[in-house]
Amino acid sequence: MGLLAAGIGAGIAAIGAGIGIGMIGKGAVESIARQPEASGDIRGAMILTAALIEGVALIAAIVCILLVFFA
Amino acid sequence: MGLLAAGIGAGIAAIGAGIGIGMIGKGAVESIARQPEASGDIRGAMILTAALIEGVALIAAIVCILLVFFA
Amino acid sequence: MGLLAAGIGAGIAAIGAGIGIGMIGKGAVESIARQPEASGDIRGAMILTAALIEGVALIAAIVCILLVFFA
Repeated sequence: MGLLAAGIGAGIAAIGAGIGIGMIGKGAVESIARQPEASGDIRGAMILTAALIEGVALIAAIVCILLVFFA
Repeated sequence: MGLLAAGIGAGIAAIGAGIGIGMIGKGAVESIARQPEASGDIRGAMILTAALIEGVALIAAIVCILLVFFA
Repeated sequence: MGLLAAGIGAGIAAIGAGIGIGMIGKGAVESIARQPEASGDIRGAMILTAALIEGVALIAAIVCILLVFFA
Protein backbone atom coordinates (compact mmCIF):
# COMPACT_ATOMS: atom_id res chain seq x y z
CA MET A 1 0.00 0.00 0.00
CA GLY A 2 2.84 2.36 0.83
CA LEU A 3 4.57 1.39 -2.39
CA LEU A 4 1.48 2.15 -4.44
CA ALA A 5 1.38 5.50 -2.70
CA ALA A 6 5.06 6.18 -3.48
CA GLY A 7 4.62 5.67 -7.20
CA ILE A 8 1.37 7.58 -7.55
CA GLY A 9 2.52 10.37 -5.25
CA ALA A 10 5.78 10.93 -7.12
CA GLY A 11 3.90 11.11 -10.38
CA ILE A 12 1.31 13.54 -9.04
CA ALA A 13 4.09 15.75 -7.66
CA ALA A 14 5.65 15.85 -11.12
CA ILE A 15 2.29 16.93 -12.59
CA GLY A 16 2.09 19.78 -10.10
CA ALA A 17 5.61 21.01 -10.73
CA GLY A 18 5.17 20.61 -14.46
CA ILE A 19 1.97 22.63 -14.69
CA GLY A 20 3.17 25.31 -12.28
CA ILE A 21 6.68 25.90 -13.58
CA GLY A 22 5.33 25.47 -17.08
CA MET A 23 2.98 28.41 -16.59
CA ILE A 24 5.81 30.51 -15.19
CA GLY A 25 8.14 29.64 -18.03
CA LYS A 26 5.45 30.35 -20.61
CA GLY A 27 4.67 33.70 -19.01
CA ALA A 28 8.35 34.59 -18.70
CA VAL A 29 9.34 33.98 -22.30
CA GLU A 30 6.25 35.82 -23.54
CA SER A 31 6.98 38.72 -21.21
CA ILE A 32 10.59 39.00 -22.34
CA ALA A 33 9.29 39.05 -25.90
CA ARG A 34 6.95 41.95 -25.02
CA GLN A 35 9.48 44.00 -22.98
CA PRO A 36 13.00 42.79 -23.75
CA GLU A 37 14.51 45.64 -21.71
CA ALA A 38 12.83 44.31 -18.53
CA SER A 39 14.36 40.86 -18.93
CA GLY A 40 16.38 41.17 -15.71
CA ASP A 41 13.34 41.82 -13.51
CA ILE A 42 11.35 39.15 -15.33
CA ARG A 43 14.13 36.62 -14.86
CA GLY A 44 14.31 37.39 -11.14
CA ALA A 45 10.57 36.88 -10.59
CA MET A 46 10.65 33.73 -12.72
CA ILE A 47 13.49 32.09 -10.78
CA LEU A 48 11.99 32.94 -7.37
CA THR A 49 8.53 31.52 -8.02
CA ALA A 50 9.87 28.49 -9.88
CA ALA A 51 12.19 27.73 -6.95
CA LEU A 52 9.22 27.84 -4.53
CA ILE A 53 7.36 25.25 -6.60
CA GLU A 54 10.51 23.16 -6.92
CA GLY A 55 10.84 23.16 -3.13
CA VAL A 56 7.40 21.72 -2.48
CA ALA A 57 7.75 19.17 -5.27
CA LEU A 58 11.11 17.96 -3.97
CA ILE A 59 9.68 17.54 -0.46
CA ALA A 60 6.85 15.48 -1.96
CA ALA A 61 9.46 13.38 -3.76
CA ILE A 62 11.32 12.87 -0.47
CA VAL A 63 8.07 11.65 1.11
CA CYS A 64 7.77 9.11 -1.71
CA ILE A 65 11.38 7.95 -1.33
CA LEU A 66 10.76 7.48 2.41
CA LEU A 67 7.71 5.41 1.51
CA VAL A 68 9.79 3.05 -0.66
CA PHE A 69 12.19 2.20 2.17
CA PHE A 70 9.98 2.46 5.26
CA ALA A 71 6.70 1.02 3.95
CA MET B 1 -3.85 3.07 4.47
CA GLY B 2 -1.92 5.85 6.15
CA LEU B 3 0.95 5.20 3.78
CA LEU B 4 -1.29 5.44 0.75
CA ALA B 5 -2.56 8.71 2.15
CA ALA B 6 1.00 9.99 2.64
CA GLY B 7 2.05 9.40 -0.96
CA ILE B 8 -1.09 10.70 -2.61
CA GLY B 9 -1.35 13.63 -0.22
CA ALA B 10 2.22 14.77 -0.88
CA GLY B 11 1.56 14.61 -4.60
CA ILE B 12 -1.69 16.56 -4.34
CA ALA B 13 0.04 19.20 -2.22
CA ALA B 14 2.63 19.60 -4.96
CA ILE B 15 -0.15 20.00 -7.55
CA GLY B 16 -1.77 22.72 -5.48
CA ALA B 17 1.44 24.64 -4.88
CA GLY B 18 2.48 24.21 -8.47
CA ILE B 19 -0.74 25.54 -9.97
CA GLY B 20 -1.07 28.34 -7.44
CA ILE B 21 2.47 29.68 -7.46
CA GLY B 22 2.58 29.05 -11.19
CA MET B 23 -0.35 31.41 -11.71
CA ILE B 24 1.32 34.00 -9.49
CA GLY B 25 4.61 33.72 -11.30
CA LYS B 26 2.94 33.90 -14.71
CA GLY B 27 0.97 36.97 -13.67
CA ALA B 28 4.03 38.62 -12.14
CA VAL B 29 6.33 38.28 -15.12
CA GLU B 30 3.58 39.44 -17.48
CA SER B 31 2.86 42.40 -15.22
CA ILE B 32 6.50 43.41 -15.09
CA ALA B 33 6.57 43.21 -18.88
CA ARG B 34 3.55 45.53 -19.08
CA GLN B 35 4.69 48.04 -16.43
CA PRO B 36 8.44 47.64 -15.88
CA GLU B 37 8.56 50.70 -13.60
CA ALA B 38 6.21 48.97 -11.11
CA SER B 39 8.47 45.92 -10.79
CA GLY B 40 9.20 46.58 -7.09
CA ASP B 41 5.54 46.58 -6.07
CA ILE B 42 4.79 43.59 -8.29
CA ARG B 43 7.67 41.65 -6.77
CA GLY B 44 6.48 42.43 -3.23
CA ALA B 45 2.94 41.19 -3.88
CA MET B 46 4.29 38.15 -5.70
CA ILE B 47 6.60 37.09 -2.88
CA LEU B 48 3.95 37.58 -0.19
CA THR B 49 1.24 35.51 -1.91
CA ALA B 50 3.65 32.82 -3.07
CA ALA B 51 5.00 32.49 0.47
CA LEU B 52 1.47 32.00 1.81
CA ILE B 53 0.86 29.13 -0.63
CA GLU B 54 4.28 27.68 0.17
CA GLY B 55 3.46 27.72 3.88
CA VAL B 56 0.29 25.69 3.53
CA ALA B 57 1.93 23.24 1.11
CA LEU B 58 4.88 22.66 3.41
CA ILE B 59 2.59 21.97 6.35
CA ALA B 60 0.73 19.44 4.19
CA ALA B 61 4.08 17.85 3.32
CA ILE B 62 5.00 17.64 7.01
CA VAL B 63 1.69 15.90 7.71
CA CYS B 64 2.59 13.35 5.01
CA ILE B 65 6.06 12.78 6.47
CA LEU B 66 4.47 12.20 9.88
CA LEU B 67 2.12 9.66 8.26
CA VAL B 68 5.06 7.64 6.92
CA PHE B 69 6.53 7.15 10.38
CA PHE B 70 3.45 7.05 12.59
CA ALA B 71 0.92 5.22 10.40
CA MET C 1 1.51 -3.57 -5.75
CA GLY C 2 4.87 -1.80 -5.91
CA LEU C 3 5.24 -2.72 -9.55
CA LEU C 4 1.80 -1.35 -10.34
CA ALA C 5 2.81 1.84 -8.56
CA ALA C 6 6.06 2.08 -10.53
CA GLY C 7 4.25 1.93 -13.84
CA ILE C 8 1.46 4.32 -12.92
CA GLY C 9 3.84 6.76 -11.26
CA ALA C 10 6.26 6.87 -14.19
CA GLY C 11 3.37 7.53 -16.55
CA ILE C 12 1.94 10.32 -14.40
CA ALA C 13 5.39 11.91 -14.13
CA ALA C 14 5.67 11.91 -17.90
CA ILE C 15 2.25 13.60 -18.15
CA GLY C 16 3.39 16.34 -15.80
CA ALA C 17 6.70 16.98 -17.53
CA GLY C 18 5.00 16.87 -20.91
CA ILE C 19 2.35 19.44 -20.02
CA GLY C 20 4.82 21.73 -18.29
CA ILE C 21 7.67 21.70 -20.79
CA GLY C 22 5.08 21.77 -23.56
CA MET C 23 3.71 25.07 -22.28
CA ILE C 24 7.22 26.50 -22.06
CA GLY C 25 8.14 25.37 -25.53
CA LYS C 26 4.91 26.78 -26.96
CA GLY C 27 5.49 30.10 -25.24
CA ALA C 28 9.13 30.21 -26.31
CA VAL C 29 8.61 29.65 -30.01
CA GLU C 30 5.74 32.15 -30.08
CA SER C 31 7.86 34.69 -28.21
CA ILE C 32 10.83 34.30 -30.51
CA ALA C 33 8.44 34.76 -33.43
CA ARG C 34 7.20 38.03 -31.87
CA GLN C 35 10.60 39.44 -30.85
CA PRO C 36 13.35 37.64 -32.77
CA GLU C 37 16.01 40.03 -31.41
CA ALA C 38 15.26 38.85 -27.82
CA SER C 39 15.82 35.20 -28.69
CA GLY C 40 18.86 34.92 -26.41
CA ASP C 41 16.97 36.02 -23.28
CA ILE C 42 13.97 33.88 -24.25
CA ARG C 43 16.16 30.85 -24.74
CA GLY C 44 17.77 31.36 -21.32
CA ALA C 45 14.41 31.57 -19.52
CA MET C 46 13.12 28.57 -21.47
CA ILE C 47 16.08 26.33 -20.62
CA LEU C 48 16.06 27.28 -16.92
CA THR C 49 12.37 26.60 -16.29
CA ALA C 50 12.37 23.44 -18.39
CA ALA C 51 15.36 22.15 -16.40
CA LEU C 52 13.47 22.70 -13.13
CA ILE C 53 10.54 20.61 -14.38
CA GLU C 54 12.94 17.99 -15.66
CA GLY C 55 14.51 17.78 -12.18
CA VAL C 56 11.25 16.92 -10.43
CA ALA C 57 10.22 14.48 -13.16
CA LEU C 58 13.57 12.68 -12.99
CA ILE C 59 13.28 12.31 -9.21
CA ALA C 60 9.80 10.87 -9.69
CA ALA C 61 11.28 8.47 -12.23
CA ILE C 62 14.00 7.49 -9.74
CA VAL C 63 11.30 6.71 -7.16
CA CYS C 64 9.67 4.42 -9.73
CA ILE C 65 12.97 2.71 -10.54
CA LEU C 66 13.54 2.11 -6.82
CA LEU C 67 10.07 0.57 -6.67
CA VAL C 68 10.95 -1.95 -9.38
CA PHE C 69 13.99 -3.27 -7.48
CA PHE C 70 12.89 -2.93 -3.86
CA ALA C 71 9.20 -3.82 -4.13
